Amino acid sequence: MNDSTLKKLIQGILSKERRSIAQALSIIENDSPEAATLLDQIGPLGGKSKIFGITGPPGAGKSTLINSLIESFVSDSLRVAILAIDPSSPFSGGAILGDRARMYSSGMNENIFIRSCASRGQLGGLSPRTPELLYILEAAGFDIIIIETIGVGQAELDIMKCANLVTLVLSPHAGDSLQALKAGIIEIADIFALNKADLPGIDSLEKDLILSLSLAPPGTPTPKLFRITATDHTGVSELKTGMLKQYEDDSNNNLIIEKKKKALEFQFEFSLREELTSNFNARPSLKKKKANLLQAVMERKKSPRKAAAELIAHFFKDTE
Amino acid sequence: MNDSTLKKLIQGILSKERRSIAQALSIIENDSPEAATLLDQIGPLGGKSKIFGITGPPGAGKSTLINSLIESFVSDSLRVAILAIDPSSPFSGGAILGDRARMYSSGMNENIFIRSCASRGQLGGLSPRTPELLYILEAAGFDIIIIETIGVGQAELDIMKCANLVTLVLSPHAGDSLQALKAGIIEIADIFALNKADLPGIDSLEKDLILSLSLAPPGTPTPKLFRITATDHTGVSELKTGMLKQYEDDSNNNLIIEKKKKALEFQFEFSLREELTSNFNARPSLKKKKANLLQAVMERKKSPRKAAAELIAHFFKDTE
Repeated sequence: MNDSTLKKLIQGILSKERRSIAQALSIIENDSPEAATLLDQIGPLGGKSKIFGITGPPGAGKSTLINSLIESFVSDSLRVAILAIDPSSPFSGGAILGDRARMYSSGMNENIFIRSCASRGQLGGLSPRTPELLYILEAAGFDIIIIETIGVGQAELDIMKCANLVTLVLSPHAGDSLQALKAGIIEIADIFALNKADLPGIDSLEKDLILSLSLAPPGTPTPKLFRITATDHTGVSELKTGMLKQYEDDSNNNLIIEKKKKALEFQFEFSLREELTSNFNARPSLKKKKANLLQAVMERKKSPRKAAAELIAHFFKDTE
Repeated sequence: MNDSTLKKLIQGILSKERRSIAQALSIIENDSPEAATLLDQIGPLGGKSKIFGITGPPGAGKSTLINSLIESFVSDSLRVAILAIDPSSPFSGGAILGDRARMYSSGMNENIFIRSCASRGQLGGLSPRTPELLYILEAAGFDIIIIETIGVGQAELDIMKCANLVTLVLSPHAGDSLQALKAGIIEIADIFALNKADLPGIDSLEKDLILSLSLAPPGTPTPKLFRITATDHTGVSELKTGMLKQYEDDSNNNLIIEKKKKALEFQFEFSLREELTSNFNARPSLKKKKANLLQAVMERKKSPRKAAAELIAHFFKDTE
């Protein structure tokens, strides 16, 4: 892609053209040569979107809630992008997302943009590309960006570091109990949406949650709780107002700007680690030494840790 | 710890003393100075345990199944270690594991050893210490090592790379459907345990699973399916026999030795990345440059990716 094509693409993103936005996201996902330049040029354009993370265990009703939230935001004339992280198994083919994409895609509403992406990086964990997709969506000037996670693993927890406000969706009978939740997930939530409020288990879910939250270290701000029934939109409008209100309060306290900075720092550290590893692995001078060390590991003559330390010492001794 | 104390500790591990084993695991978890030497010295002692991974969504009944399997293995006079990964939220305090530990700890059975550990590393994802705990348990000569995951995230999926045989536990109503399963989890399973076989949904679960599996690329070995009801031990003995039989078949085909090698390679690559990052971050000469670049990222003058690339280029230009 030459300079003028790239310039056109950026112009397209600024003009909110779906095709340009989608193309830019693909450039990042495929790690095309122009990705770095693209990111650099759009950087100053972003930073103004409200980034809402929505997470929760499978079966809690995240998708239904998000569909309902989208409608509500759009009826307020807001432009909304949804970044859905880690669609289900390759075998089942991410049908949930496919259905939603079909539902909204047919020119039905120009203010909704949906993209799904895999969360996985080379060595497991979050892919460094995922936060970069947000960077593009911010530049495209969406008022609201929703990060939706399908799974509840570490990669999904990590991506929440890029959100400005996190809503955790829970429902009675999704998973066995609060106990089954991923470590750390309750701690990162700013708002709780207790879904399927018509089910009998809702009172004890709320009781358990309040008990869990009471065990948090003193000084932790108390997260807001909302009871909703996403299937018939009950309480969703109140939840949406609550999210926007919390965002405003946090903005006034400079909390949002701090969170946006933290997200950029996280992404910097993260890119650093990935680039460092791939740069290191690409060095031909280390190939032979590495192969020999791996052989020793396979024969259990050296522990993996010791072999790794030796390779790094060998490398760094030239750099002192 | 001086040489003779370390020698004593290793002797203790070889003599299967619980206290020595527990102490060695703590040395690894705390990353004590003697950890590297310890790992290196016990390396040649391991590699003979059968390492079984047991995973599945919350609520599938993994814990109940594992309790039943432990009893069954122990009644065959086998020594069993359980490494439980990622106990639930710090708020709830990992009560499930605590209960089990109490159940077996009181000298009740010398052939059962249980340890729980966090899965999380510095930057999210699997901690490089977790596979090293296995390295210790192998040296302690356990016949069977069960890796149990509580969550189903990427870190838990990664630790399964260290198992020689993976059993995926599913049950009707745990999560909403197969679709909610973490991407990749079906693909890594060698054996499926369909739990709560007394529930009405079991037939459609099995049908869905067989359909999912039929979509796998041609040549993929067909995993074995077992229906069980872990709460009253129904089918657990058959499952256990199936696991041991599969392990034997895979050994005869040299598959197990390949998997054990792959696990060591994974651990080597993994340690390499962690060591490299911490070594790099510890270099004082980069501190100032890094701070300046981070500032530019915060001001959105540089993308996180570009800033990372610049810092690495700056570093490597001295090493060419």
